[in-house]
Amino acid sequence: MKKDYSDIENLKEGLLRGDRLSLSKAITLIESTKTEDRKKADQLLDSIINNTGKSIRIGISGVPGVGKSTFIEAFGLHVLKQNKKVAVLAVDPSSSTAKGSILGDKTRMQELSANKNAFIRPSPSSGNLGGVARKTRESILLCEAAGYDVILVETVGVGQSEITVRSMVDFFLLLMIAGAGDELQGIKRGIMEIADLVLVNKADGDNLPRAKAARQDYGRALHLFQAKESGWTPLALTCSSIENIGIKEVAQEIEKYQNHTKTNGYFASNRKRQALNWFKEMFSTSVQELLLEFSTINATYESCIEAVKKEKMTPGSALQKIKEAIRQEFLKSSNN
Amino acid sequence: MKKDYSDIENLKEGLLRGDRLSLSKAITLIESTKTEDRKKADQLLDSIINNTGKSIRIGISGVPGVGKSTFIEAFGLHVLKQNKKVAVLAVDPSSSTAKGSILGDKTRMQELSANKNAFIRPSPSSGNLGGVARKTRESILLCEAAGYDVILVETVGVGQSEITVRSMVDFFLLLMIAGAGDELQGIKRGIMEIADLVLVNKADGDNLPRAKAARQDYGRALHLFQAKESGWTPLALTCSSIENIGIKEVAQEIEKYQNHTKTNGYFASNRKRQALNWFKEMFSTSVQELLLEFSTINATYESCIEAVKKEKMTPGSALQKIKEAIRQEFLKSSNN
Repeated sequence: MKKDYSDIENLKEGLLRGDRLSLSKAITLIESTKTEDRKKADQLLDSIINNTGKSIRIGISGVPGVGKSTFIEAFGLHVLKQNKKVAVLAVDPSSSTAKGSILGDKTRMQELSANKNAFIRPSPSSGNLGGVARKTRESILLCEAAGYDVILVETVGVGQSEITVRSMVDFFLLLMIAGAGDELQGIKRGIMEIADLVLVNKADGDNLPRAKAARQDYGRALHLFQAKESGWTPLALTCSSIENIGIKEVAQEIEKYQNHTKTNGYFASNRKRQALNWFKEMFSTSVQELLLEFSTINATYESCIEAVKKEKMTPGSALQKIKEAIRQEFLKSSNN
Repeated sequence: MKKDYSDIENLKEGLLRGDRLSLSKAITLIESTKTEDRKKADQLLDSIINNTGKSIRIGISGVPGVGKSTFIEAFGLHVLKQNKKVAVLAVDPSSSTAKGSILGDKTRMQELSANKNAFIRPSPSSGNLGGVARKTRESILLCEAAGYDVILVETVGVGQSEITVRSMVDFFLLLMIAGAGDELQGIKRGIMEIADLVLVNKADGDNLPRAKAARQDYGRALHLFQAKESGWTPLALTCSSIENIGIKEVAQEIEKYQNHTKTNGYFASNRKRQALNWFKEMFSTSVQELLLEFSTINATYESCIEAVKKEKMTPGSALQKIKEAIRQEFLKSSNN
């Protein structure tokens, strides 16, 4: 027990000192699926919670080919020049498969990853979106405790992962390119609507006129959406990550957003709501596992599953039966 | 008590006789939010479960303007001509707002709604998608008990509702029109991928060449998707609902699908899985409500919520605390 405690103490001390190796180890700890590690992870997170919250958390999405890595390299280097520390995390539930993991190849961010004030961590390779999301949320807290000022959370522009990333960041940046069919870029109402900035990348060379036209189109589309609760009006901008054009303007736009939402109170209220939703989500998924640890409830559950499968019972009645079993357990205890 | 029982008995008897008024009343009962009604609804559903399952359940989706009502009118009349009974239900969580409810206006299906072998029921106007989905699933069972052979579940082509409808039907038909921008028609990978048939409507008059071209495009797109677990290869077809062209072919395609999936076993295994997922979904959402009825657990939950909001506790630790409170309750009971 002494040893475990000192491990956590060491990790905490290293984290607060900004040591990158400690940060790596701490993230490995929260990614572990062992029960013992989970306890230590919670202990560590509790011990650093007062040192979290001071960064700006930025979600970055865009379909493969849009130039996310190149943009993050350019943007990250710009952040470093401001004497700030930058961390890059990823939410990519598909990374365990061959579907093209992001951040797997640090060579795409060579200059950034070599800098001591930058920290890059690939997506946890195991598990479903919910599990990956939890680990990323906790990694954000660890990075903040380690003094990172800007935290980028990268995700691929497919499926549900953007919505999940949106739920853990302050600012959501949608990367686009001109020319690829709209349907390939997720220009569905849902994704445009959650963006705080639409950024047309690869605005360089022959592609410049098309990028500018795309920017106009997206700008017009953004006007069609309802006003945001944050009071923020998202713009469409262009940039060239390889020529380092328009990167500074992105940083300025994010700063404007921070000023705007810190003044009107949205920044803080949004974070509170995010923490609360995260907790509620965890509660709802884990509470049933807990109940099924109890043999009487589990037996009822399994027999209901069988009956429902054979269409001998409607799901509604099965639910009533299980509720009754749970109530019985509780009544036993309250009568004593 | 006697009276309640006889109500349910009457409803059941009317349902099994195929009486449309009894079916209407039964659906109203399952849509009720009163606890007493819910009990009766479960009782009714249990009593008719052995009379369910014999229909073909067809989901129909498409954005507003695609001609869903006109298609359903034409398709429904074709079904009636085969001496079969047809029911039309809807899943439209937005129907309570002004966003344009579907099926609100039965005049758009005048001939169909006048026929005694057709039953049309608008979407329940209350509640979230989960609630609407449950009511629709239960309505399907009631319609089957009342002898309806073909059950159409209509939904608007936006958001999450198609995925929900997919989870309750055997066959999913995606209606399209030529010319509207792809981004407006939900030609995102997700929606095309769940379709068993893509049907380009309004293939008539001047629009015919464009509809044929669109059909080709969609047909090509369908080839890009992974093979379906059902072993079924979805086609793209055209039809004209107002000129009643291509409607018979849709019915034939659905029949082919039934033969195919009944032969390879997918039809039955899919229904089993659907029932099971429905039950698991209900279990996960309601089990926490149940736990929070107990004051000790509720008190811990509320104090955790406060701590998480003030960022004094991580969601992970809060969850541990609540789990502990639940375990304590159960330990009390198991020790006795």
